[in-house]
Amino acid sequence: MDPNTSGLVQKLAEAGQSHLLQFWKELSTKEQQELFQDLQGMDFLEINKFFKSAMETSSSTKHEKMDGRMEPVPREVLGSVTRDRESLKDWEAKGLDCIGQSKVAVLLLAGGQGTRLGFSHPKGMYDVGLPSHKTLFQIQAERILKLQQLAKQKTTVNCCVPWYIMTSGRTMESTKNFFSEHKYFGLDKDNVIFFQQGMLPAMDYNGKIILESQGKLSMAPDGNGGLYRALGNQGILDDMQRRGVEFIHVYCVDNILVKVADPTFIGFCVQKGADCGAKVVEKTNPTEAVGVVCKVDGRYQVVEYSEITLATAEKRSSDGRLMFSAGNVANHFFSFSFLRDVVQEYEPQLQHHVAQKKIPFVDVQGHIITPEKPNGIKMEKFVFDIFQFAKTFVVYEVLREDEFSPLKNADAQDGKDTPTTARHALMSLHHRWVLNAGGHFIDENGRRVPAIPRDGAAGSVTDDGNRNLKDGTDLPIKCEISPLVSYAGEGLEKLVKGRELQATLMIDEHGVHELVKNGV
Amino acid sequence: MDPNTSGLVQKLAEAGQSHLLQFWKELSTKEQQELFQDLQGMDFLEINKFFKSAMETSSSTKHEKMDGRMEPVPREVLGSVTRDRESLKDWEAKGLDCIGQSKVAVLLLAGGQGTRLGFSHPKGMYDVGLPSHKTLFQIQAERILKLQQLAKQKTTVNCCVPWYIMTSGRTMESTKNFFSEHKYFGLDKDNVIFFQQGMLPAMDYNGKIILESQGKLSMAPDGNGGLYRALGNQGILDDMQRRGVEFIHVYCVDNILVKVADPTFIGFCVQKGADCGAKVVEKTNPTEAVGVVCKVDGRYQVVEYSEITLATAEKRSSDGRLMFSAGNVANHFFSFSFLRDVVQEYEPQLQHHVAQKKIPFVDVQGHIITPEKPNGIKMEKFVFDIFQFAKTFVVYEVLREDEFSPLKNADAQDGKDTPTTARHALMSLHHRWVLNAGGHFIDENGRRVPAIPRDGAAGSVTDDGNRNLKDGTDLPIKCEISPLVSYAGEGLEKLVKGRELQATLMIDEHGVHELVKNGV
Repeated sequence: MDPNTSGLVQKLAEAGQSHLLQFWKELSTKEQQELFQDLQGMDFLEINKFFKSAMETSSSTKHEKMDGRMEPVPREVLGSVTRDRESLKDWEAKGLDCIGQSKVAVLLLAGGQGTRLGFSHPKGMYDVGLPSHKTLFQIQAERILKLQQLAKQKTTVNCCVPWYIMTSGRTMESTKNFFSEHKYFGLDKDNVIFFQQGMLPAMDYNGKIILESQGKLSMAPDGNGGLYRALGNQGILDDMQRRGVEFIHVYCVDNILVKVADPTFIGFCVQKGADCGAKVVEKTNPTEAVGVVCKVDGRYQVVEYSEITLATAEKRSSDGRLMFSAGNVANHFFSFSFLRDVVQEYEPQLQHHVAQKKIPFVDVQGHIITPEKPNGIKMEKFVFDIFQFAKTFVVYEVLREDEFSPLKNADAQDGKDTPTTARHALMSLHHRWVLNAGGHFIDENGRRVPAIPRDGAAGSVTDDGNRNLKDGTDLPIKCEISPLVSYAGEGLEKLVKGRELQATLMIDEHGVHELVKNGV
Repeated sequence: MDPNTSGLVQKLAEAGQSHLLQFWKELSTKEQQELFQDLQGMDFLEINKFFKSAMETSSSTKHEKMDGRMEPVPREVLGSVTRDRESLKDWEAKGLDCIGQSKVAVLLLAGGQGTRLGFSHPKGMYDVGLPSHKTLFQIQAERILKLQQLAKQKTTVNCCVPWYIMTSGRTMESTKNFFSEHKYFGLDKDNVIFFQQGMLPAMDYNGKIILESQGKLSMAPDGNGGLYRALGNQGILDDMQRRGVEFIHVYCVDNILVKVADPTFIGFCVQKGADCGAKVVEKTNPTEAVGVVCKVDGRYQVVEYSEITLATAEKRSSDGRLMFSAGNVANHFFSFSFLRDVVQEYEPQLQHHVAQKKIPFVDVQGHIITPEKPNGIKMEKFVFDIFQFAKTFVVYEVLREDEFSPLKNADAQDGKDTPTTARHALMSLHHRWVLNAGGHFIDENGRRVPAIPRDGAAGSVTDDGNRNLKDGTDLPIKCEISPLVSYAGEGLEKLVKGRELQATLMIDEHGVHELVKNGV
């Protein structure tokens, strides 16, 4: 553990990172041990290379105009739940067949922490305050369980949808423990596979690794695109092959509405012979802060909102829709062979993106400073960076209100993407399921409640002529349906058709419950 | 002032409203005088008739299914800023011609108070916190001024757009004083005409008028549809005729983005030979709480969100759009002759709508009670109730982000339709005007700011791959352009083209100002 004799000092000097040992003599033996171990495991020349090329790419793309090179997604590679309604049943059946044959796996990106959410555990452990108080992990697990049942009903054989969960150094232990404590929410332990994305140090603008304390480097996960490296170096690809997985659905943990292994999406991609597909929601406002899927120089990619000019963002097709309207929601389909090629061939070609950040650091006196302006960068790859390698790329457009409500921010901070918006989005969806299955909601006086509640949806328009019936805000009807009962609204007629129901309504595997306030 | 000798007692008895005098003996002489005057002026038999027919209509329509009778707006009566871009210039030119010939008037619905906003003055006096601190009234006045200029530039003659402002008993005095104090914001005093909508008493469910205190009736404005009665009985129609007004643009005070006398909308309606037109925004989410313009039994009307079933709200056309997507924003066009016919012929046919409310009342002991549940109704007509009488009805679809951001709620109460959302909507629009005129924004380090700021629009999608450049929320660029400089984004090239600008940016009649923080 002597930095000199071990060659570490020399290795650091060669890489221009000698400052990492500047407080060595002031560290306790335990701190020295930990720092020594961290440094020994790192390839500084590779990190320097990442830094150099990330900074070059970042500064060159900023000056390059993307506009002239962008083309929208052609209609023939687009599937849409609103425009292709006649095909949805076919696609769903196809997808359920694939699931029934145990050819489909899901892959969860759960490496991030809930920093903006003000939650120090993995985001999947968050309870947004539903009547059931289920966490995001539980909701997703139960959707997988239900899907296995639905596929079995169709194919009459047992099947399995393995669940690969990518954590990071920061979230691995607590994620595993949480699943273990909750008995994998009813899933087979062997079909829940955890793995870990890599970490990279934060660097200052001169390429020096930042110390967050005297004996500790400032480390961060290497972006959700760290997936591809991790798939290879942790044997996940081999595991998939062993299980005969042919299609993989990849998604982010923070979307409470996510249709895990959505059979319609999978069926669409499979029928189109796609090796790679992106689920999108329609961008309807030019200045919405969402990346869009499009072609650039003939290859598919996500153009981030910060890269696009207003003139391009405002372009419209003759039908009046935005030309670049395929809003990326981090929800993708990959064929196994494509994923294998990416991991084995293309991954090293991916550049890291530069995220400028305010990174706490120790100054030369050893004081920890929290900067007020960005003082360095984190390097990240993005999961969608591999679209460019697809041979048959497809896009599948779904309804935002049915499928996308991410949890990003704490309730107090900002009205957007909060526990409240996530909870409301889920309850609003389940409310609609009940109505479409023929159920009715009544208020405490026995009167039927209008289908569309006041302030029913985010960003609602209300006008002065519309103040009947209720004073004040009439939030979504409180209604929650367990994924164990219904995956996407199916199978509810027998439970609710023709019934008059009172909120709070809970439908779970034990039946229909009206949780009326103050007892009863 | 003796209720007996004057016949008032008998009049009340005949109308079943004798309870209004129950505290007579306990009132002071002044209170007696006031109550006597209020009661003398009222036609109780008419009020009872209103009550009876409003209650009948309200209970019958509730049980009647609207769904089977609804038809969407046909494409041929729809004009759209996104789908008819090739016609916009023509329509605008036509509208400017009409304005230039002084044939266009604007009519502002400003009878409501800012109760939900927590503001005890007329809403138009509200300052949403723009850099200029202009009120809604001032913004609208300056838009009229600018439009008169633009029309003059085109036609080379002076023109005038008279502004009719409908207040209510509650807002008349303060509105008039405010305009007078501010010298009519530069408009000619003679062209700003105030009038007053009627008031109706609140009634309990048995048709008894509610006393809000021992000597005072609970009164409320008779809805924005009170317009039509007021136009007749206050000589406004005559005034319009005298001035040669042929086309009238009607709108609500609370929309900060309102294009007062929008020449494109007016030109579209005139070219189509319409007697009545509604400006709408596209409803994109089935459960948005907005009324939709559609045909019912072959006649146009607004179907309120509370009247529609989910199945109908979710219906889609083959192009994937919602079938009932014409979201009403209380922004209408009327020909003078249509308005005259409405006032003189059709108005009495309009039914009052019933709004159930929690109405404070005095109990038999004379105590003032604030109820927790709705205890009575207010009766209102709606401005759009007259669509049914139109012979040539048209619909004009505009972009919500460009034209509609209503101010309804206080900032603390709810994230929707607040001073903050109104301010952001205006600054975001003006930011886009600057970019489209060739200006650029730079940050404090001189770097260009992306065109689309993070969280740029309400209801934005953000995903995990999109965290470059900035930490935290990057609110709309602070940018305000005086209506005296630009009505709808025109004429800015000479001021900003090729320039690098720093927020807070203010462009007014004195030039371009960068209001940098901390002096400079």
